[in-house]
Amino acid sequence: MSDPADFLSRLSGALPAAALRAVAPRYLSEPRGRWEGRACAVVAPGSAEEAATALRLACEARVPVIPYGGGTGLVGGQVAQGGAAPLLVSLERMTRIREVYPDENVMIVEAGAILSDVHDAAEKAHRLFPLSIAAKGSARIGGLLATNAGGVNVLRYGNARDLCLGLEAVMPSGEVWHGLKRLRKDNTGYDLRNLLIGSEGTLGLITAASLKLAPRPAGEGTALMVVEGPAAALRLLSMARDHMGEGVSAFELMHREGLNFLAETMPQVRQPWEAAPEWFVLIDVGLARGLDPAGALEALFEAALEAGLVSDGMIAQSEGQRTDFWTIRESIPEANRHIGAISSHDVSLPLGAVAEFVAAAPGALARIGAFRINCFGHLGDGNLHYNVFPVPGRSRVEHEDQRDAIKTCVHDMVHALGGSVSAEHGIGRLKVGDLERYGDPAKLAAMRAIKAALDPAGIMNPGAVLRVL
Amino acid sequence: MSDPADFLSRLSGALPAAALRAVAPRYLSEPRGRWEGRACAVVAPGSAEEAATALRLACEARVPVIPYGGGTGLVGGQVAQGGAAPLLVSLERMTRIREVYPDENVMIVEAGAILSDVHDAAEKAHRLFPLSIAAKGSARIGGLLATNAGGVNVLRYGNARDLCLGLEAVMPSGEVWHGLKRLRKDNTGYDLRNLLIGSEGTLGLITAASLKLAPRPAGEGTALMVVEGPAAALRLLSMARDHMGEGVSAFELMHREGLNFLAETMPQVRQPWEAAPEWFVLIDVGLARGLDPAGALEALFEAALEAGLVSDGMIAQSEGQRTDFWTIRESIPEANRHIGAISSHDVSLPLGAVAEFVAAAPGALARIGAFRINCFGHLGDGNLHYNVFPVPGRSRVEHEDQRDAIKTCVHDMVHALGGSVSAEHGIGRLKVGDLERYGDPAKLAAMRAIKAALDPAGIMNPGAVLRVL
Repeated sequence: MSDPADFLSRLSGALPAAALRAVAPRYLSEPRGRWEGRACAVVAPGSAEEAATALRLACEARVPVIPYGGGTGLVGGQVAQGGAAPLLVSLERMTRIREVYPDENVMIVEAGAILSDVHDAAEKAHRLFPLSIAAKGSARIGGLLATNAGGVNVLRYGNARDLCLGLEAVMPSGEVWHGLKRLRKDNTGYDLRNLLIGSEGTLGLITAASLKLAPRPAGEGTALMVVEGPAAALRLLSMARDHMGEGVSAFELMHREGLNFLAETMPQVRQPWEAAPEWFVLIDVGLARGLDPAGALEALFEAALEAGLVSDGMIAQSEGQRTDFWTIRESIPEANRHIGAISSHDVSLPLGAVAEFVAAAPGALARIGAFRINCFGHLGDGNLHYNVFPVPGRSRVEHEDQRDAIKTCVHDMVHALGGSVSAEHGIGRLKVGDLERYGDPAKLAAMRAIKAALDPAGIMNPGAVLRVL
Repeated sequence: MSDPADFLSRLSGALPAAALRAVAPRYLSEPRGRWEGRACAVVAPGSAEEAATALRLACEARVPVIPYGGGTGLVGGQVAQGGAAPLLVSLERMTRIREVYPDENVMIVEAGAILSDVHDAAEKAHRLFPLSIAAKGSARIGGLLATNAGGVNVLRYGNARDLCLGLEAVMPSGEVWHGLKRLRKDNTGYDLRNLLIGSEGTLGLITAASLKLAPRPAGEGTALMVVEGPAAALRLLSMARDHMGEGVSAFELMHREGLNFLAETMPQVRQPWEAAPEWFVLIDVGLARGLDPAGALEALFEAALEAGLVSDGMIAQSEGQRTDFWTIRESIPEANRHIGAISSHDVSLPLGAVAEFVAAAPGALARIGAFRINCFGHLGDGNLHYNVFPVPGRSRVEHEDQRDAIKTCVHDMVHALGGSVSAEHGIGRLKVGDLERYGDPAKLAAMRAIKAALDPAGIMNPGAVLRVL
């Protein structure tokens, strides 16, 4: 590596003043406060070409580069640990909605666009951009794609990768790939788009994307229904799809513990029941013309009651009530943060194995110690957030020495059932060891070969996804 | 390269007798009869492990390997040209449906399973495997995935890649990747699955796949509607989706020339009109419970008539009539073969550019000569099969010298409009030059780096997708 001061002076000589940023603390923190990052400099390019300049200079100087979106990632992919202090390339100045094609259901946006701004732009064109996560007010499109974000609408509309038709990206060589296609079918060569999506900034820097929009459903409805457990919930989902086909847009499982946490830490959130049930689901539907969502949910509820799948339920009668129901679901991650998890797990399972996992995990964890468990998530995708907390009166720091055992216990069970130890958050730096432990050796070898081929200098987000050898 | 006889004797020593096949002519031909292939041997492994043995021996002896499915590809990906005679690895013995999980909407099948057998197995489980192409009676799952096949239901259900949750594959090194996940969300590392899908056998050999099933729609309906041209057809599609949401499963554009070709070469196919209209669409819908498909198509037709988008139409009143309508669409490729195209083009365009292309292309081609054009395809995906034929009384051989000019004329226009010169058929050997001419240089460089990294000996389907340098 060349002299750092030299690199910084070449960087500031090659980029406009507007692209140079101070290394502010906000770039170095992450949402759960577990790690503090480092950076030798921060640049905010205004175009793919400026980003390419930054990457070329970094490559020449062998300075690591971390692509930086909204900083909302939960696995440390945006936070350097060890090695030379990296250059952070922040997308914060590339926030334009470049084009909207409502008739094509396509929108071209720069990678720094914030998710909620993309939602608004789609709505203005009477369309829907369906990707939605709790951090939508700060997460940026580039980061959402780099991590293949999931969220609450995957059941109907897919992950981030399913919503992307094309990319503009700077490859580690500094070449710009102009791949902003608006095509539904394009079989011209290897799927570089999907390779970059989910590679967490280790294979290139996404600067813009061509996104799929969806028609807005004619009518939407939301219900809460009480179920006996995950197995009944999955049968209810099957019944809901039998009734409404693709109309089921979200199917979220929640547990009483989530309501307890809300009552404890966020009393302003309206509780749906006086006596909280053990398990319940939030069902969201968006239906085509000629169908009444509240009526369809009512019919579903009655059929499910008849079949013994639900014991209680409420169907939103107004937009205000829909918001109330969703507020419960969307406040749970914040309540979790207030309580303070010892260990959080973002896992997925084959749908047929969800109930077995949920039944067996508490017993296995009880052999390690006494904990509270808040299990919730996107049941329709088999994606559970399985978070382990101290019992009342104790704090997470008292359990530091148990964290590894808890994590291994949960992940081993998930893996044995054919599941994934990172359903939607990615690998980042937090789960590099998990990937080595549970990943398929042939796939890992292929990943390492691809990384070495596309980024021979190893400058792109080193230490994320793959260990630096 | 070592002695070929030596390689063949090691191969027959290492594999069971059942895996050894004679080099029959059927392995060396392709549907349009344009090229004849070559092979030093054909093996049909019974498992991923046997396939891995074959690849390891081929790699040691530097013998090229061509993965062989149903042999239905249209771009010569399965037909060796030049270089050493390859080993064909046929999937014909790996045809098992390994597992069906109806509650998960998942099925695990071996790569040699024939598409129509997969359809039948899904139906037996009251589910739908939606991928459908004309060659469904002979195309095999491995080939469909290796080429990311499209077909008539992409509009609703996506391409082959959208219907695959996981793969088992032999990497060029001979290592087996065990990636048959049944998960809807799995963000553990690079997307090797999508990299192999669409790589046309140049990066590995798919031996089994975990496939997504869909619920069967409660009711299905089909209509033919006469439109003024592609622009009106696209507005009709928009209206259809506004009425029926995701319920629109196919939206196929056809031209009078297709009906002429049918009348000329396949008089047994029932013609829908006495006087054929210039442009018409086939609309297929599958709706959830509580909706009547024929009634919904009737309502759509009336609204479209009101809006001036359609001038005539017929809605199938029975399953027999649905079959009749579909037979027209599905017989057009065969009628085309009877007439004999000078040049066929599988192109896609941004939806907003389809009408412009269809309006401009005939004039541009007329500057080359006098031709008949049959333009048809999956309009909802922007995917047109734009095929150019001799006028009556002349034959394709008389136009040999114009083929390149015709192809370049069509492809240049498509490329200038932001389209793709291979929408669903892939690159194979036929379009290697097109990929070099129209492909993005940064993407091509990345593809070459990936190929060299995963297949350093260059044994996997050399000459397909990328030129052997």
